[in-house]
Amino acid sequence: MKSQIIAAQILQTLTTPAQNHFRTAGVPALNVDLQGIPGGRHYGFTRKAGARENWYPRGMDMRSGRQLSIVSLEDLAEIARRMDLPRIEPGWIGANMVVSGIPDFTLIPWGSRFFCGEGAVLVNEGENAPCRFAGGEIARNFPSRERLDILFPKAAIHLRGVVATVERAGGIAPGPLKVKIPEQKLWTGGRLL
Amino acid sequence: MKSQIIAAQILQTLTTPAQNHFRTAGVPALNVDLQGIPGGRHYGFTRKAGARENWYPRGMDMRSGRQLSIVSLEDLAEIARRMDLPRIEPGWIGANMVVSGIPDFTLIPWGSRFFCGEGAVLVNEGENAPCRFAGGEIARNFPSRERLDILFPKAAIHLRGVVATVERAGGIAPGPLKVKIPEQKLWTGGRLL
Repeated sequence: MKSQIIAAQILQTLTTPAQNHFRTAGVPALNVDLQGIPGGRHYGFTRKAGARENWYPRGMDMRSGRQLSIVSLEDLAEIARRMDLPRIEPGWIGANMVVSGIPDFTLIPWGSRFFCGEGAVLVNEGENAPCRFAGGEIARNFPSRERLDILFPKAAIHLRGVVATVERAGGIAPGPLKVKIPEQKLWTGGRLL
Repeated sequence: MKSQIIAAQILQTLTTPAQNHFRTAGVPALNVDLQGIPGGRHYGFTRKAGARENWYPRGMDMRSGRQLSIVSLEDLAEIARRMDLPRIEPGWIGANMVVSGIPDFTLIPWGSRFFCGEGAVLVNEGENAPCRFAGGEIARNFPSRERLDILFPKAAIHLRGVVATVERAGGIAPGPLKVKIPEQKLWTGGRLL
């Protein structure tokens, strides 16, 4: 499938208010450099390997593909619907940017580029795997409900947004967003579709 | 399509003998860190935008997705066949690693991981676009043939290998290679295949 450009919107930008927690809080805009969001929890070209990378020793220095977390309004609404919740706030699960207008946002191809109206360009590094920590934060906001932390990873599969790195430094703020979807192909030993 | 692991081979490792040219020459092994090949032409977390990124100002600092260039023996042989040449040496086109045993190597998905037997892990950052500079170097080796520099970009499409970044520091040497192909999907507005 040929490359295509999608016109969409940035609705909200968020960053880390406290380094010791993955929660994020809304800010009017972000100004990113090539290592991510200065002061943010995931700032850096490298990071320590964690539970998601169980093929590496815990704490090993590795390339960071997750400088920013991006979610879509539509995907969060669908997770909330599946969990029978009135809403899921993007800050509860550590998002840095909320977008709207991209169907099946979490499934956009690795290597898709986000051209933000304020200058920054981000590269999609793939689906963000849902985890129980984010589920725990959702659960904390609905104390009358049980086992939401375990329900979240199941409900959020292919809906939890993507992680991204910065390709071009610059601003990110609510407003227009263009997403360039690269040429798509399936490797089947490898016929180009 | 589900993720899969391919058992393959590393045949050769190469690096830059002179910083002022993209040619590479064979070495017994490479020892990469998270910025790539120390002393290599493409070492660094960042690089300057060039002709391939014509949507950016030339020389702009940007994220580097091309610390290493990887080609396959089979794809190079097919390019040579299409160009009616006896061979194409990987060093002529600046390759850092030659692999064998992966069908349609250049088409493997973005995000595929190369687990090298000597410890390094590389992440596929997509197809390497053929260019006239590499074509010029091929032409220089066959002075009796005309216009090989222009023929190369056409003959090499989907055969010129991929670029990659280092996820885990370590060694790269001829020997066993495992390639993890991630789950594949096409975003069609976005049905998961």
